[in-house]
Amino acid sequence: MSQTMYVGIDLGGTAIKLAFVSLEGEIVHLMSAPTNVEDGGDGILHTMDRLISEGLEELGRAKGDIKGVGIGAPGFIEMSTGFVHEAVNLGWKNYPLKEKLEGMTGLPVYVDNDANIAALGEMWKGAGEGAKDLLCITLGTGVGGGVIINGTIHHGAKGTAGEIGHTTVIADGGYRCNCGKLGCLETLASATGIVRLAKEALISDSQHTSSLAKVLKENGNVEAKDVLDAAREGDQLGKEILGQVAHYLGVTLGNYAVLMNPEKIVIGGGVSKAGDVLFEPIRAQYQKYALPHLTGNVEIAPATLGNDAGVIGAAWLVHQGEQNH
Amino acid sequence: MSQTMYVGIDLGGTAIKLAFVSLEGEIVHLMSAPTNVEDGGDGILHTMDRLISEGLEELGRAKGDIKGVGIGAPGFIEMSTGFVHEAVNLGWKNYPLKEKLEGMTGLPVYVDNDANIAALGEMWKGAGEGAKDLLCITLGTGVGGGVIINGTIHHGAKGTAGEIGHTTVIADGGYRCNCGKLGCLETLASATGIVRLAKEALISDSQHTSSLAKVLKENGNVEAKDVLDAAREGDQLGKEILGQVAHYLGVTLGNYAVLMNPEKIVIGGGVSKAGDVLFEPIRAQYQKYALPHLTGNVEIAPATLGNDAGVIGAAWLVHQGEQNH
Repeated sequence: MSQTMYVGIDLGGTAIKLAFVSLEGEIVHLMSAPTNVEDGGDGILHTMDRLISEGLEELGRAKGDIKGVGIGAPGFIEMSTGFVHEAVNLGWKNYPLKEKLEGMTGLPVYVDNDANIAALGEMWKGAGEGAKDLLCITLGTGVGGGVIINGTIHHGAKGTAGEIGHTTVIADGGYRCNCGKLGCLETLASATGIVRLAKEALISDSQHTSSLAKVLKENGNVEAKDVLDAAREGDQLGKEILGQVAHYLGVTLGNYAVLMNPEKIVIGGGVSKAGDVLFEPIRAQYQKYALPHLTGNVEIAPATLGNDAGVIGAAWLVHQGEQNH
Repeated sequence: MSQTMYVGIDLGGTAIKLAFVSLEGEIVHLMSAPTNVEDGGDGILHTMDRLISEGLEELGRAKGDIKGVGIGAPGFIEMSTGFVHEAVNLGWKNYPLKEKLEGMTGLPVYVDNDANIAALGEMWKGAGEGAKDLLCITLGTGVGGGVIINGTIHHGAKGTAGEIGHTTVIADGGYRCNCGKLGCLETLASATGIVRLAKEALISDSQHTSSLAKVLKENGNVEAKDVLDAAREGDQLGKEILGQVAHYLGVTLGNYAVLMNPEKIVIGGGVSKAGDVLFEPIRAQYQKYALPHLTGNVEIAPATLGNDAGVIGAAWLVHQGEQNH
């Protein structure tokens, strides 16, 4: 039988998501299992191998039907060799992921960074479909990104390109970021950043006029989702906070568009689920900072694949790897 | 006889620079002529054709020795077809530059933007030699740039990538730029921007302690070169102005390094001739804004080819074009 499927794996600290993906990028079969960090991290590979065998059995297919396995992994990875320098959460240090999994499964393996595969997924089958030059940004607990040039991920000299969360947006001061710098985009536009902005605003909001004051009183805490919900329901304070977030995103994306001139900008992650109440001010701020007439008409679109972007993008690694051989 | 030379042309509003360049990127013979905008711009092509013939005669070579002609031109150009949509200073509108010059000379012609060929020249034979991912910035009357990825210029979706001068560095306010936006890097880090900063500072410098106050009084004007010279001679005001310029360049280059993770950053143009008095504060500011441990150790180097970068980069277009055929 001919090879008609890719396997795409999105490897996270708590779960392994694995999909059988058609040559056209459609998910045929989706599986997941907890991330097993036993045996110096080898447990993860055994789980992957087992999922592939189980999946093939459920699909009534054979290993020969699979063209290859693509993996998006966290940590500091050398893409060309699939060598993981370090992935703290997985217990991997100097771990030859590609070599080991190829040995175990007998299939060709392709590895990239987890933020990058989400961007590739959106390019192939999501909001960026058809675009070859794409800027992707993920607003989650942190802020991640991926730069796609000519249909492939741009890794840069040391493989760290696309770290959009660490763009300095407040040059003199700002909050301290996990990376050690001050004033990074991630300290403001991530879920964590939004919560911080909300708590600061609530302290100043002595009249307690915002619905968020009630949430804080009742739950003893405010989450990013509360802020997005409040803004959507017209709460002034919630809208002001998203206005600040949109301002910092607008400057960042406007400047990066001046440098890269992308076809499209795709925004994903939990925070992006806020929808128009976030995207409309982002687009307005972006127009203010991008070059008029040129990058000004770049579409800023919400990601459409949600949590599936990773496995689809991981499958794309195989698709792309094949074309280069 | 075998083809052993490229022709590289740097086309400006006042002069045409043309060089015969060896296959290794060395200038064999350099010529120039005034830009002749007669005959609806056709005069420019006749000048180029004449320079090629004269150069061959002086070198004792034949047209068959030339592999092709590369041109860097100003204006809005479609690189793949060598079609110039508009170049106001040259009198060109919807001008099929590549097609016409190929017809006239019988040689293959490759066209790109003038800012881009300077970047390619530095990559091939200048400060960026050997680097495949390079960020180039030119501090002249304006501020230009070029993004090199995998050894070729990144043009972007509409060919406008690398417009580093139009990075917004003052998000709320700042000076009005020629592009229509406020707070662009070009309004501060170009020669024009430095003069503006100097004049503003001199108004506040009521004690007239700066040597620049004397220059202004004697010449009725201050030029960027005066500010660079004053700073180099230890003048406090001159150093403060370059400190401001370095701050804005540091944020911009730090952020772009976070996005692109280049191997090297090359700074050229007249302003860059200031040397260490400008490069040292730029490097210090860059370290502050680039990601620690990762992009922090990218070298920031002065351009080394000066005015020859253009013709060498134009010759590179032929070199690169050949490899793609």
